[in-house]
Amino acid sequence: MQSENVTTLETYLAERKALIDGALEEFLPGAGDGPEIIHQALRYSLFAGGKRLRPILCMAAAEATGGRGEDFLSCACALEMIHTYSLIHDDLPSMDNDDYRRGMATSHRVFGEGIAILAGDALLTEAFHLLSRAESTRDDNTEKRFRVINLIARAAGAAGMVGGQVMDLQGEGKTAALETIEDTHRRKTGAMLTVSVVSGAILAGATAAQIAALSSYGQDIGLAFQIADDILNVTGDSALMGKGTGSDISKGKTTFPAMLGMEASRRRLTELVGGAASHLAGFDHRAEPLRQIAGYIMERNR
Amino acid sequence: MQSENVTTLETYLAERKALIDGALEEFLPGAGDGPEIIHQALRYSLFAGGKRLRPILCMAAAEATGGRGEDFLSCACALEMIHTYSLIHDDLPSMDNDDYRRGMATSHRVFGEGIAILAGDALLTEAFHLLSRAESTRDDNTEKRFRVINLIARAAGAAGMVGGQVMDLQGEGKTAALETIEDTHRRKTGAMLTVSVVSGAILAGATAAQIAALSSYGQDIGLAFQIADDILNVTGDSALMGKGTGSDISKGKTTFPAMLGMEASRRRLTELVGGAASHLAGFDHRAEPLRQIAGYIMERNR
Repeated sequence: MQSENVTTLETYLAERKALIDGALEEFLPGAGDGPEIIHQALRYSLFAGGKRLRPILCMAAAEATGGRGEDFLSCACALEMIHTYSLIHDDLPSMDNDDYRRGMATSHRVFGEGIAILAGDALLTEAFHLLSRAESTRDDNTEKRFRVINLIARAAGAAGMVGGQVMDLQGEGKTAALETIEDTHRRKTGAMLTVSVVSGAILAGATAAQIAALSSYGQDIGLAFQIADDILNVTGDSALMGKGTGSDISKGKTTFPAMLGMEASRRRLTELVGGAASHLAGFDHRAEPLRQIAGYIMERNR
Repeated sequence: MQSENVTTLETYLAERKALIDGALEEFLPGAGDGPEIIHQALRYSLFAGGKRLRPILCMAAAEATGGRGEDFLSCACALEMIHTYSLIHDDLPSMDNDDYRRGMATSHRVFGEGIAILAGDALLTEAFHLLSRAESTRDDNTEKRFRVINLIARAAGAAGMVGGQVMDLQGEGKTAALETIEDTHRRKTGAMLTVSVVSGAILAGATAAQIAALSSYGQDIGLAFQIADDILNVTGDSALMGKGTGSDISKGKTTFPAMLGMEASRRRLTELVGGAASHLAGFDHRAEPLRQIAGYIMERNR
């Protein structure tokens, strides 16, 4: 059963990715709209092989609460734009100084630092442009989308993702307490993963209890995802990661395996994935993709 | 009458600035919300002596169309946050490489490049967080604010401000056609000035004709503002500008005086200010601040 589930999940993820990639292409500002190079830079990073985890989570959460994932592609794509902007800025020389990501030269290596910064700025801005598109077919929806914009902005801002990146930047080369590391990751990756599922649920008209359960699910998989990434950074092969194995260590970043040891890190990961699943206990079969995605985070680590 | 008007306008601008500064302080994310340094960096740039032109225009446009400016302080402050983010990023070494602005060391000189980039990112994000705040006192307002978010995001994005900065960056050291320079400025400063008046008008419930007239007003003063700035950069004293006179020339930027000559630049400025005033012909005395602001753009240049 396990391998059958994985095959099904892989097909599901691939189909969703294709759907999201098509929508992203459609939602991006037209090539005539502003200077050519900025559009090249947006597309270069946006189509650099991302897994589309955030938009997939958004759509899956909408479906788990009775909606149709395809109805919320604009929100799903906005989440991916914000994620991509954060990668472009994180890779800059004054931040993580990465030359490669997923095996491709990073934006500033291709377009120069100035254009890379502006490409990130544009993606962040275009995400809010997309989130606030009037969609005439769903005119009862403005209140929900307004709320979603607010939650996404909070997750992406100083209290969330940007705050996490600041903590990461300040923590480099220092050893930090486990609590600080978890707080950093909760902001840096957890907040956006959580708001991805929460947004989908809100847009689909979920109840407050469903939204709370999905928020807890999002927090658990957010931290699980980071621990799995840290473990993979030590043990994984660099082709899968698209960057050198052990690169976190060489940058002096404190990772979960460095802090807890490998065995305790794996245990923590298992706990979190179990916790994520338990938050879905009140949902029916329509939450199956969310359950399998939690398992997948652990699987890719084997 | 002229000098009396100017005195009245100066009082008006100072009162508005104080009101906006107080609101910005209130609207900024709390110091406990995320790492301390990011809040220091946000406040450092946000309270570095800006004139608050965009928020003042937003509130003045709301009043010209029958609203109360104070009711729209959140939108006004969001516009200032976006403006401030753009200054922080424009000053970076990979962009304009400016060490000083308004006589103060620029963000990256004080906090380092990484934090400066993140402070800009945070301000842009917090602007959308602020624009999407639920304000229980005005619950009929969501549709209008949703539309305003969309217009502001468009003005700030690849088709607007970011696009203009890209064109500016690519144009450095090259001589460009007058049309290209006007297009650059229309995007880089004009789009945000225009959306400032348009946002205030929409929120105040203006008619489509009023919004169109104010949009034309915004476009005219936007370009006028840039020409006045270019002229001041050649003739003005550096204390007033907070940066060295002639700094545009030393960077190889093509300015209006360099392109048209000083006399024709002044003529174009006069035309634009006259054009701006003419778009306000259908408005009553409540548009007086907008009329005077147009004149002020020319005045500061004397």
